[in-house]
Amino acid sequence: MGLVFHERVGLDGRRISPFSWRVRYALAHKGIDPEVVLTRFADVGRIRALSGQDLTPIIQDDGHVVHDSWAIACHVEDRYPNAPSLFGGAAGRGTARLVNIWSDATLMPPLRRFLGADFLWCLDPGDRAYFRRSRETQFGATLEATAADSKRWLAAFTEASAPLERTLTEQPFLAGSAPAYVDYVVFSVFQHARIGSPNDVLPDATGRAALRGWRARMVALYDGLGDRFGSYPTVRSGPDGRDAGTLG
Amino acid sequence: MGLVFHERVGLDGRRISPFSWRVRYALAHKGIDPEVVLTRFADVGRIRALSGQDLTPIIQDDGHVVHDSWAIACHVEDRYPNAPSLFGGAAGRGTARLVNIWSDATLMPPLRRFLGADFLWCLDPGDRAYFRRSRETQFGATLEATAADSKRWLAAFTEASAPLERTLTEQPFLAGSAPAYVDYVVFSVFQHARIGSPNDVLPDATGRAALRGWRARMVALYDGLGDRFGSYPTVRSGPDGRDAGTLG
Repeated sequence: MGLVFHERVGLDGRRISPFSWRVRYALAHKGIDPEVVLTRFADVGRIRALSGQDLTPIIQDDGHVVHDSWAIACHVEDRYPNAPSLFGGAAGRGTARLVNIWSDATLMPPLRRFLGADFLWCLDPGDRAYFRRSRETQFGATLEATAADSKRWLAAFTEASAPLERTLTEQPFLAGSAPAYVDYVVFSVFQHARIGSPNDVLPDATGRAALRGWRARMVALYDGLGDRFGSYPTVRSGPDGRDAGTLG
Repeated sequence: MGLVFHERVGLDGRRISPFSWRVRYALAHKGIDPEVVLTRFADVGRIRALSGQDLTPIIQDDGHVVHDSWAIACHVEDRYPNAPSLFGGAAGRGTARLVNIWSDATLMPPLRRFLGADFLWCLDPGDRAYFRRSRETQFGATLEATAADSKRWLAAFTEASAPLERTLTEQPFLAGSAPAYVDYVVFSVFQHARIGSPNDVLPDATGRAALRGWRARMVALYDGLGDRFGSYPTVRSGPDGRDAGTLG
């Protein structure tokens, strides 16, 4: 049996999870074509039975069940050493871990708040109530109240991205002349933003021209992988998850 | 002729520049024992004549004059490919550049303000007036007024260092299991702090135990290189640079 990839899915096949996106790009980098099991938030029972925890992505590979995107990247790097390297060696791996931690700690929090309620519309309608409740608990405010400060979150995101912009004025990818896992990690955040909101996180006014160029190169990799599964929905339809149990 | 290293020097032979420290560690990593030319701020005329710009570090190597610590690291990596690698390959180099830019943009500004006037006392007395003027212009305030907010600068520095702390709970060095240039870049900031202030930037209350352990390992590398040239002076003596031309 080939590698099985349990990947988070949203409305009409959209891929909505930054953590799944980094694994998807990592598998493409390695030339691995996985068997995909699409996973909604509502499928948590199956995920828990499989892995002993609630989150995707997960891979099953030759008897191993691996969860957590970093652990998955390390697994495929070590298990497929003859395929193109995700890290370019030990120092590249160590440093990629630092960038991974930095990216999740610094870029993700303002981005999640910037997306606010927009993100609900690319989820399966049946997952929206859960997602709303989960995020509103995390933010301590309704998604709508959080998004009302969207200029503030965009400013924070823009400030956090300054080292990326400066680096990409010097080299085409974060890993240098060719993309590697560090690019996939950071791109997954921007991809999450592309699919999760009708509003660009890199508008002209932010002065992020190098990042925009890099994002376009990343979308185009692997036969346009970044555009393969649908973009932000043009029509918002169905329930918005605002039922009993939310703060709204 | 061997490699010549023009290295910033302070009071009684102290090495005071973070940018010179990262080059010193990089040369030690490569097993290069340079001919050192100690350089005060007052020596700017010689530096300008040599390199066409005002800043140290600079190296002269086999007819090349290279300034800027990143350019120097790349030069020695490419010029001495058989010595231990500073980057561990192309992806490691690209990613190290991102961490270099992040570190200088994120850690250095609050640290410089935290050091405030303390830093003057490890400079050659003849360099203090220049240094005070330069920093006070940069800060838009006297060094003493800046340092009055030291709790604020320490809090900002501690927050910026969070991804480092988290990474170092997982691995002994930023580059993984062994130190590489990315460690030298970030360590140079902490070394600048060690030598430039009597106050620790990693006190217990900041919850930075992994960073403290890493800092100690970094100081101990290459026969205790981090402690070779003197620590913060125990006696503050001589002029403090508060002459005509300062904001004070």
